[in-house]
Amino acid sequence: MSVTTSSEFSNKSDGADLQLDANGQLRHLLTLRGLSRAQITDLLDQSVEFLSPPGSPVIRSNALQGRTIANLFFEPSTRTRASFQLAATRLGADVLNLDVNTSSRAKGESILDTIYTLQAMQVDIFVVRDASTGVPAYIADNASEFVSILNAGESTVAHPTQGLLDLLTIRQHKGSFENLAVAIVGDIAHSRVARSAAEGLLTLGVGDLRLVSPPELALDSDTLPGARLLHDLDTGIRDADVVMALRIQHERINDIDDIPGMEEYASNFGISHERMKIAAPDAIVMHPGPINRGIEIESSLADSAASVITEQVTNGVAVRMAVLSTVAKTLAAQ
Amino acid sequence: MSVTTSSEFSNKSDGADLQLDANGQLRHLLTLRGLSRAQITDLLDQSVEFLSPPGSPVIRSNALQGRTIANLFFEPSTRTRASFQLAATRLGADVLNLDVNTSSRAKGESILDTIYTLQAMQVDIFVVRDASTGVPAYIADNASEFVSILNAGESTVAHPTQGLLDLLTIRQHKGSFENLAVAIVGDIAHSRVARSAAEGLLTLGVGDLRLVSPPELALDSDTLPGARLLHDLDTGIRDADVVMALRIQHERINDIDDIPGMEEYASNFGISHERMKIAAPDAIVMHPGPINRGIEIESSLADSAASVITEQVTNGVAVRMAVLSTVAKTLAAQ
Amino acid sequence: MSVTTSSEFSNKSDGADLQLDANGQLRHLLTLRGLSRAQITDLLDQSVEFLSPPGSPVIRSNALQGRTIANLFFEPSTRTRASFQLAATRLGADVLNLDVNTSSRAKGESILDTIYTLQAMQVDIFVVRDASTGVPAYIADNASEFVSILNAGESTVAHPTQGLLDLLTIRQHKGSFENLAVAIVGDIAHSRVARSAAEGLLTLGVGDLRLVSPPELALDSDTLPGARLLHDLDTGIRDADVVMALRIQHERINDIDDIPGMEEYASNFGISHERMKIAAPDAIVMHPGPINRGIEIESSLADSAASVITEQVTNGVAVRMAVLSTVAKTLAAQ
Repeated sequence: MSVTTSSEFSNKSDGADLQLDANGQLRHLLTLRGLSRAQITDLLDQSVEFLSPPGSPVIRSNALQGRTIANLFFEPSTRTRASFQLAATRLGADVLNLDVNTSSRAKGESILDTIYTLQAMQVDIFVVRDASTGVPAYIADNASEFVSILNAGESTVAHPTQGLLDLLTIRQHKGSFENLAVAIVGDIAHSRVARSAAEGLLTLGVGDLRLVSPPELALDSDTLPGARLLHDLDTGIRDADVVMALRIQHERINDIDDIPGMEEYASNFGISHERMKIAAPDAIVMHPGPINRGIEIESSLADSAASVITEQVTNGVAVRMAVLSTVAKTLAAQ
Repeated sequence: MSVTTSSEFSNKSDGADLQLDANGQLRHLLTLRGLSRAQITDLLDQSVEFLSPPGSPVIRSNALQGRTIANLFFEPSTRTRASFQLAATRLGADVLNLDVNTSSRAKGESILDTIYTLQAMQVDIFVVRDASTGVPAYIADNASEFVSILNAGESTVAHPTQGLLDLLTIRQHKGSFENLAVAIVGDIAHSRVARSAAEGLLTLGVGDLRLVSPPELALDSDTLPGARLLHDLDTGIRDADVVMALRIQHERINDIDDIPGMEEYASNFGISHERMKIAAPDAIVMHPGPINRGIEIESSLADSAASVITEQVTNGVAVRMAVLSTVAKTLAAQ
Repeated sequence: MSVTTSSEFSNKSDGADLQLDANGQLRHLLTLRGLSRAQITDLLDQSVEFLSPPGSPVIRSNALQGRTIANLFFEPSTRTRASFQLAATRLGADVLNLDVNTSSRAKGESILDTIYTLQAMQVDIFVVRDASTGVPAYIADNASEFVSILNAGESTVAHPTQGLLDLLTIRQHKGSFENLAVAIVGDIAHSRVARSAAEGLLTLGVGDLRLVSPPELALDSDTLPGARLLHDLDTGIRDADVVMALRIQHERINDIDDIPGMEEYASNFGISHERMKIAAPDAIVMHPGPINRGIEIESSLADSAASVITEQVTNGVAVRMAVLSTVAKTLAAQ
């Protein structure tokens, strides 16, 4: 155990250098930064094995039989928590859901002491969501050699399993990445979804990556070298093969009652059937959910043939099964 | 996907016509209205197979192995949620409990988008409780062809598994329904328990169904044709074979601090040993729970030999196992 | 059923005489009082069978297959609830977590009616935590003959599985109890941890048991005959083989903002490296967690080689597996 307080998560790294064990195997999944094209492709290939057609039985295995997974969500979540729970359950793991409201964190226990306690109960894999940058890497840097940390959403900087499911969905529809134009549209500056998807796309050699946002919601130009920062929607999605709308956080734009701000956003950056005429004819429309219908995406577009939103959700379970299987193999090989 | 907002649940039907698939098999359970005597009897017969004597091992099977059940409770519940969870678990299903407090509904996601997300994760059966009339039918009308919706309590209008467990309990004690006098006592107007029990009893041909309440808590006379609406307790329970007391919702009568209103209710409509002398000598006493001892039912009466309240709870698990098994069979046969 | 209200938990006993069945087998675990040295030793011996080295697979069995365990926590808890859940799951039981916030207790249902409802659903073992003295014994006294009650923390008076895990941890490090000096330090008067550990240590024949606290936080001298009540830390831990620091409840000392009170407590009763020089050279340091680093225990001491805090957590799961197995055997033999 090291001595720390819960307010100190300063790491030397963003976690990219902590993810692989001495043999180069994936031990933690903290960020898509630092993973090679081969490693990402391998995870996507594995994910495909966990997909079955709608209405047919789910794929199940005993790969995680005897393993204990703890879902530690310090921010509320329905879909990501459910997706990880189902992924773990369908692989035969035992799942412990720890509710932030009843957690010891309310009693002033540090995050690390919570982790030390749970790893002493032989929890093997921690699925962690936290609003503070650096928490997953901080935990990975301090946890025992027998556990694995999976980042399920970290502040505005990383959501690697979401990035993987986005990559898988694009690959299913477009085959390869080299000649693709992908536009991610919305509050890029504060979106962990955008960051992880963009990092993965760049690693996979995407042809043209456009991050489209109002200027005040753009990243610094040196955060994602290789991506183009654009501030006009029509320019951003022209001839794009993939258009990913981000969920707008009401609190980022303005108070939810300030309708003009939202309407202006929808008018300037909302994705609609009309707007999509500028994109490639067979372009797909993506969204990480939950959708604000009529704001960042036109409601009927979300339900149209161009939308792959529900496929993203299905792929999410498969991707998490692949990640869980992979890190469990790494743990077992130690 | 269809375009809707979460505040619009207007359906053409109350769900009765949505429950059966093209082959007449039970696909959703939304209401007891519209189910035939044979269908209800079949569910009760199946339920009996899931009962075992107290202290002996529970009946278990793998009928739902590989199936995923989501408990979506938008109203708080201990007993019904626990009952469904145990029923599903004892049939080998995976269970996902979604807490209303941490749900995406707080983020403004529509109910349908939550359902679409979960069905994309290959959830097979949704157990839904909601305070708004029409939500279960609305979901059933819009969900994918691969899922089943079970109503676990809908506003003041339907609680079909509670109705089934009431029917099973009466049948166990009284054998058949033709010559029975059944009195349901309390806030009939706002009770989904009363509605579903009454609908089931009428379908099974109950001899004399009496809905006993203060006039201001009565149903319209055309809501349940065949039932008698009575407003005097002694008249209502005279020679009754079954007396079912309903839980009084404090907020319906008056503020909980206004003791006179409660005392008056208990005096006029509370079921007591003394009052039960008017009923048939072997009458049974029922209550859906949780009990307000000393208000709608005399405390010692709830614990007496005439009370079948705990049997109702036991039957509840068995009935839910029968319903889950039945809809899973329907899904598998598609 | 007996007629009671939830505010009446007056029992003739503290539960010690309710724990064993007619054959002397452990049926409920309510307190360590009244258990014999042989019974406690047997539970510790069984617990050892459920331990495996860190990083190796957890011990699992099907001893509780088909059994249903309900976690009824009327006080918030992360670690104890998680520990019981994992213990039950690893023995193959079905686990029902009942959240106090959404429980029927909010609707005014009595504790006993909640128990009656759950035992009617064939819950076999109830794990109960409650802030009121007497609740576990009260439930055990009134529950059906087919269920078992395990006390998971009762007011300030009992936490028997915590006591057992403390005994196991001491035995692992010190072998036997006869020649040991054990100092428990902190708010003895309000600590269920101290009470259960002390009761167990006295039953196992500990050589010298010292309960060290400020005078205003001491027990009455006749509560634990055989223990020495001390009010000076240096005297209390001199040559001690085991030093157990208790978690200080901020609200007991003073308002959390009143730093002087906390600082004074830390200065007078906090366990530090410096202070531990007075104890035996190979003394171990214990703490039930969660730790207030820098208050009742120096942060670096909690992480030092002398600290056995994480072993306590690991032993907690093993002890609970032993207790669950034991009472399940008793239930099955009825």
